[in-house]
Amino acid sequence: MRHTISILVENKFGVLTRVAGLFSGRGYNIDSLNVAPTHDSSLSRMTIVTRGDDATVEQIVKQLGKLIDVVKVIDYRQGDYIDRELVLLKVATGSDNRAEVAQMAELFRAKVVDVQPDNLTIEITGGEGKIEKFITLMKGFGILDLTRTGQVALPRA
Amino acid sequence: MRHTISILVENKFGVLTRVAGLFSGRGYNIDSLNVAPTHDSSLSRMTIVTRGDDATVEQIVKQLGKLIDVVKVIDYRQGDYIDRELVLLKVATGSDNRAEVAQMAELFRAKVVDVQPDNLTIEITGGEGKIEKFITLMKGFGILDLTRTGQVALPRA
Repeated sequence: MRHTISILVENKFGVLTRVAGLFSGRGYNIDSLNVAPTHDSSLSRMTIVTRGDDATVEQIVKQLGKLIDVVKVIDYRQGDYIDRELVLLKVATGSDNRAEVAQMAELFRAKVVDVQPDNLTIEITGGEGKIEKFITLMKGFGILDLTRTGQVALPRA
Repeated sequence: MRHTISILVENKFGVLTRVAGLFSGRGYNIDSLNVAPTHDSSLSRMTIVTRGDDATVEQIVKQLGKLIDVVKVIDYRQGDYIDRELVLLKVATGSDNRAEVAQMAELFRAKVVDVQPDNLTIEITGGEGKIEKFITLMKGFGILDLTRTGQVALPRA
């Protein structure tokens, strides 16, 4: 089962290493992770997507809460939240199928952000289902390169 | 000076800890970091934004290239690349200024993704300049919560 965990941390050296080390040291898998400053420059927020049964994730959350420089841990698995991810994809296209790929991007409200003779670079944002579906569709044309941010989330309240 | 570094890694335990440890151990600062799978499920891509003079960043890139499970390191500081970031913000709004905030979001091509009596949640994507400008504007209304993915980048070619 997939869980999204949000960790508010002091913006200090080594906190990312401690959090990553907790996961790898205990054999917990990380599907995606991101960390960046918040609007308060002394704090950063980390969002981690992990897999595991509820008991395992409860353990992870408890252990995260004990780490130095960790201010707050939210386990979004049960809560009502908004999650989004951004993906940049470079898709192989030629004169025969460029229009088709561009139209599919439009249908997904994705944006073409670069055009080259043999490829298009597309930016798409959304929840997991939408993004996975778009990637699967684009695989039919040929994905040359892909980078994704991993999920971020905020409580819906 | 800001640098964006892209690291293609084998999707294995501990690689994130090793990369984060290299930065913290040597006192290199990380502005933002994200890691997620690519379209090849055996590989993940990490994007790190760091600060430092060219010599320091050259050092970092060399040392990253020597780590186990690191496949490829790209230093985007000189290359031509597309970078994007996604931010979710919860902005304080009431009946007196909800329309104004929603209109500003529209002008930035941002999307309102949740509406509550006393706040709006907004999704915005873009390069650094656009996002910083929007966050500064929204601070005037009151940012209640904010989460950002950190930059991702692909070469423009």
